Amino acid sequence: MSVTFAQGFSAAGVAAGISAVEGKKDLALVVNNGPLDAAAGVFTSNRFCAAPVQWSRKALADGHIKAVILNSGGANACTGEAGYQQSVATAETVASLVGAKDPSDVAVCSTGLIGELLPLDNVLAGAKTAYAALANTAEAGADASQAIMTTDTKPKTVTLTGSNGWKIGGMVKGSGMIAPQLATMLCVITTDAVVSGGQMQAALNQAAEHSFNRIDVDGCMSTNDTVLLLASGASGVEPDKDEFNRLVREACSSLARQIIGDGEGASHDIRITVTGATTEDAALACGRAVAASNLLKCAISGNDPNWGRIVSSLGTVPESVAPYDSDKVTVDVNGVRICENGGAGRDRSEVDMTPREVHIDIDLNAGDAEATVWTDDLTHEYVHINADYES
Amino acid sequence: MSVTFAQGFSAAGVAAGISAVEGKKDLALVVNNGPLDAAAGVFTSNRFCAAPVQWSRKALADGHIKAVILNSGGANACTGEAGYQQSVATAETVASLVGAKDPSDVAVCSTGLIGELLPLDNVLAGAKTAYAALANTAEAGADASQAIMTTDTKPKTVTLTGSNGWKIGGMVKGSGMIAPQLATMLCVITTDAVVSGGQMQAALNQAAEHSFNRIDVDGCMSTNDTVLLLASGASGVEPDKDEFNRLVREACSSLARQIIGDGEGASHDIRITVTGATTEDAALACGRAVAASNLLKCAISGNDPNWGRIVSSLGTVPESVAPYDSDKVTVDVNGVRICENGGAGRDRSEVDMTPREVHIDIDLNAGDAEATVWTDDLTHEYVHINADYES
Repeated sequence: MSVTFAQGFSAAGVAAGISAVEGKKDLALVVNNGPLDAAAGVFTSNRFCAAPVQWSRKALADGHIKAVILNSGGANACTGEAGYQQSVATAETVASLVGAKDPSDVAVCSTGLIGELLPLDNVLAGAKTAYAALANTAEAGADASQAIMTTDTKPKTVTLTGSNGWKIGGMVKGSGMIAPQLATMLCVITTDAVVSGGQMQAALNQAAEHSFNRIDVDGCMSTNDTVLLLASGASGVEPDKDEFNRLVREACSSLARQIIGDGEGASHDIRITVTGATTEDAALACGRAVAASNLLKCAISGNDPNWGRIVSSLGTVPESVAPYDSDKVTVDVNGVRICENGGAGRDRSEVDMTPREVHIDIDLNAGDAEATVWTDDLTHEYVHINADYES
Repeated sequence: MSVTFAQGFSAAGVAAGISAVEGKKDLALVVNNGPLDAAAGVFTSNRFCAAPVQWSRKALADGHIKAVILNSGGANACTGEAGYQQSVATAETVASLVGAKDPSDVAVCSTGLIGELLPLDNVLAGAKTAYAALANTAEAGADASQAIMTTDTKPKTVTLTGSNGWKIGGMVKGSGMIAPQLATMLCVITTDAVVSGGQMQAALNQAAEHSFNRIDVDGCMSTNDTVLLLASGASGVEPDKDEFNRLVREACSSLARQIIGDGEGASHDIRITVTGATTEDAALACGRAVAASNLLKCAISGNDPNWGRIVSSLGTVPESVAPYDSDKVTVDVNGVRICENGGAGRDRSEVDMTPREVHIDIDLNAGDAEATVWTDDLTHEYVHINADYES
């Protein structure tokens, strides 16, 4: 279903011979049939950002996008001017196919290996095949969500319906924030609501901040991360602003949660909630420090609710960032308070670590603010995927 | 040899029944027989710092330490007032044994599990056994360096001789910066030079900054890290200040390098040198960002000189911290320039990845400053040690 759930969008996913995996769908096309073509986006802040990111950032500057073409099988990152011209040529071809007046009405997204040019002939021929296959069916949306997968083990999609029937649909690929090489995050969310580009950008910024920016599989920032939000206005409904913001955030949160659920090699999805902080930023800094601990992530993969590794990560956050008294901190894992007043609490053997989802609740007892971040455990399989994939 | 190489020091390492491993040497004692008892130290900046760190930091405030007692088998961290009183009692016992006028002449170091009190009776009885075993022999120094090991697979020591025969000896434990739970870093360096506490502290700060602060096995900061430098003055030699600084730095660098060489589960030691930076801090920030990349560390463990993962890590350093042009960056791995002008260079298959030591040389081409950091690769064995050790 994914991006075709909202009215006014058609999509396709085809095998274009870009991926090294024979016959894998590797090219997706999403077209906004209007009447609106409003768009918003957020992109990686990596300074080695990929050619398609450079292109799409420019294309989006006027708040209008008519179509998005996305490929797996190659990131087109660190490919210089030649790589940039590949993104331009791809946008030009798609623009002429969909009848857009300018290539800058087309966004381009790529994911896969860094440092290599794409097989451009295959991309352009594939764009034509995809255009011919465009449909506004559930199957077409599903095809598109499959065509953007790399190390992902399953497609990740979301559908939501607002008051008076306006809709949001979305798809994402990514096995974490994560792997700059093989699991960069690409996301397209569509809506048939009648909204302005400015309103969408504000909603998306907020939503991304509370979803995609709060997951961390391995602390590695991609060169290609792109999240696009497109509005067709086809429902004719002008949604309540708060409801619109809320549903965009819900869509992003659902997709982000699905990325964590499909994190490379993960055997546990870990939710870290920090409460009792002086500010949300303080809570977030503490949550991120804990989420970044390889030692904790290894312990969780071994079903060990190791609170020593939690508090020692917490202890790396400077007092200027998060004021708290280490003697007042409590930590619950799956509901059992195993750390009380900064020291040992109930016995860790009381914690049931069998569920895939692990809840770490940290109370700093210093204020009223809180934040939640998600991460995965660190497993043999993660090392296997990232050590042995290439060779 | 280790800490007994310099004149004026005696040491012992005994099995005191603190470690869970039956019969393992787990208690070390180092005594400065003078005539001087000058001392300097650096400690973890973790806010959940262990009781012995709290004690030793106070004890060192006057620049004098007569003896150091170190145990493996328990970190005495997150143990509250009871844990602090254990450190006090240990210092009191050792002070009376060695005839120190005050417990604050004794530093205490602990390493092992977080969150549990030590078996104090065993520690105090062991201190007496260690005192009886004190000797200024090579064997006694070796025993001490073994008694502080946890996940370390080998003792790590250093001996250096300055002009006119003054000496430095040292020992360290730690399988990285690293494992706050089971591999915290403890280091004692002794010298028979005639030096003041102030001169020693300045030398040690510089040395630690360029050695222990530039290694990173897994990005995890310990609750117990302690580095102590003790001077007996027994050689009667007042060394040239520059030579003293240089040899202290050399001792720390050697010990830090040995930690990397014994990093948990590591199959490659990775030296990352960043040149062409605008400032040393900029070079260091870039080096640390690359050293922290799990993806790169996995790639290296799979013998893949994956430059995409190097530049994408580099790209996470903000321009305000390290100004450079991504189109001008070059990366050599083991002498082969596989990334040129921010894009693909020579083929990665040309890189010989068989040596244990891997050299990553990054030229930002933006200035004249440089810095070097060391890290280990991320292996199945690292996950195994840290996922399965406890359970």
